[in-house]
Amino acid sequence: MSGKSVAIAGVTGAVGGEFLKVLEQRRFPVNRLKCLASARSVGKQVTFQGEALPVEELTEKSFAGVELALFSAGGSISKRFAPAATAAGCVVVDNSSAFRMDDNVPLIVPEINPGDVNGHGGIIANPNCSTIIMVVPVWPLHQKFKVRRIVCATYQAASGAGARAMQELETQTRAVLDGLDGEQLKPSVFPHRIAFNLFSHDSPIGADGYCEEERKMVHETRKIFHDPEIRVTATCVRVPILRAHAEAINLEFAREVDEAEARAILAAAPGIKLVDDRANNHFPMPIEVSGQDHIHVGRVRRDISQPNGRGLDIFVAGDQILKGAALNAVQIAELL
Amino acid sequence: MSGKSVAIAGVTGAVGGEFLKVLEQRRFPVNRLKCLASARSVGKQVTFQGEALPVEELTEKSFAGVELALFSAGGSISKRFAPAATAAGCVVVDNSSAFRMDDNVPLIVPEINPGDVNGHGGIIANPNCSTIIMVVPVWPLHQKFKVRRIVCATYQAASGAGARAMQELETQTRAVLDGLDGEQLKPSVFPHRIAFNLFSHDSPIGADGYCEEERKMVHETRKIFHDPEIRVTATCVRVPILRAHAEAINLEFAREVDEAEARAILAAAPGIKLVDDRANNHFPMPIEVSGQDHIHVGRVRRDISQPNGRGLDIFVAGDQILKGAALNAVQIAELL
Repeated sequence: MSGKSVAIAGVTGAVGGEFLKVLEQRRFPVNRLKCLASARSVGKQVTFQGEALPVEELTEKSFAGVELALFSAGGSISKRFAPAATAAGCVVVDNSSAFRMDDNVPLIVPEINPGDVNGHGGIIANPNCSTIIMVVPVWPLHQKFKVRRIVCATYQAASGAGARAMQELETQTRAVLDGLDGEQLKPSVFPHRIAFNLFSHDSPIGADGYCEEERKMVHETRKIFHDPEIRVTATCVRVPILRAHAEAINLEFAREVDEAEARAILAAAPGIKLVDDRANNHFPMPIEVSGQDHIHVGRVRRDISQPNGRGLDIFVAGDQILKGAALNAVQIAELL
Repeated sequence: MSGKSVAIAGVTGAVGGEFLKVLEQRRFPVNRLKCLASARSVGKQVTFQGEALPVEELTEKSFAGVELALFSAGGSISKRFAPAATAAGCVVVDNSSAFRMDDNVPLIVPEINPGDVNGHGGIIANPNCSTIIMVVPVWPLHQKFKVRRIVCATYQAASGAGARAMQELETQTRAVLDGLDGEQLKPSVFPHRIAFNLFSHDSPIGADGYCEEERKMVHETRKIFHDPEIRVTATCVRVPILRAHAEAINLEFAREVDEAEARAILAAAPGIKLVDDRANNHFPMPIEVSGQDHIHVGRVRRDISQPNGRGLDIFVAGDQILKGAALNAVQIAELL
């Protein structure tokens, strides 16, 4: 019998739904699919390959006979149930931050470090969405010019906070346009109004002033690149976009950069589409990258603030739910 | 008779309207106000100090007896009519980019280089909005730690492209929410859809890959600071916000930075409000700074990617139409 027995934990979430689509589109060999979520989703159905499947409650016993589990239900759920899955002989690809920095857990972007999948101990981690969207284009440049420092500012969509956050953006925006205020504009998912507004990423701030999202970009990049010397600073910002993150990335290299060569390297790299049309002012945009597998890269230019020629500025956009989450996780599963 | 004879060129625009409010609020001594715009606005009226004033056509002859003219009608209008104004003995404060980099024209941010107003030759330039919002908070830090390099990513509101652009954002957003497409989403002011989208700033791109908006931030900063050594790189991005720009600013200094000292300096600096509440995740936001005179500054933290301790990251937001344009211009007029 061909195909694997697969489970999706968190199937009713924004990323969970995308797992179903990506498995279908990439014709991932599935012979049995268990759709798992919290007890309150039991009774719902999801559709996979034209078939309606019931949502079952995620428990420690869900993984008997399951070979591969894709988790995207938050860090605490992963911490609680992933050990049960691995104990049942199942391999877990986890989209949460629960295990990413564990020394025994590979953190994989298939375009960068596919070989790290070997020697996993049952759990493989999917990086943070902002990290993936940054490192896919930076990696081929790093191969050639050796990145020493990254300064990144993000423009992150509501999708990063899940389906309810996307809904909050829509409902709130309509309320603003209709001239409503008070209750209708009161945020429930985000800490601040998101309609026609932006704010610093809503993750806890540490003693050093960096928020968790920023810290992930710093540490995950080093782990994925196997280069503890790379220095990263980031400012993560939530913007009123439904889906797809963008990032302004300033790069410092050990070697001088040739702009045309950098562009050629990016054009040839896997997982990337070069969108860099200066004459028509056409560069990466969230609406063009939504639903797309590739990360769009543009505004490729030598950094004029680096007189030694060792700097490059780029602007990128990527679908946070696809390459930033579900697609990358399924690509990891394909490596197995 | 107290007060000046004042003219506003471009009175029907987004900044023009704000000139009227700022002159009123700051009780600028006006004894006569001429409201000038293009021929197609003649017949309209504007309100100043409770009085309805007719809009007159801007011509070379508009400035007889006028002592101060505030221009905000675009670079080509300034180039054409500012010489006529100065010939009539009028001092021009120009909000366009037409004269900013002229050696004979002072480029003023009153919190930074008020003394440059002396020795003007009839025209004084108001800097670009993104530049003003960046340099007001960077200046006091520069005084203490000496800025050597700035990496800036902007989050610019539709207001920067005028009142019609703000309207396009609203109309287009409603169309997206109503599930419309095709004609209703076709942009007319911006080159791309702005509703739930963002894109690289819509100004022409030069051979070095930088757009005009970014180049302004590079060169105007040096002129305002009187420091041709300061190196700046910027990525300017238009976001679906109605009013007020935000900027993620990474700073490199000649000296080591103490974070607490940096915060104290910013808290005491003119034109700035420190909004930096880590516990409540409350930092500068466009909706809180809209209609405000002060530039909000937060996310003040030592840059962990600079092991020598000479880096700082900040996040700022400022009303693009007020401090970014009309308010700064009126403050310049107050220096005269």
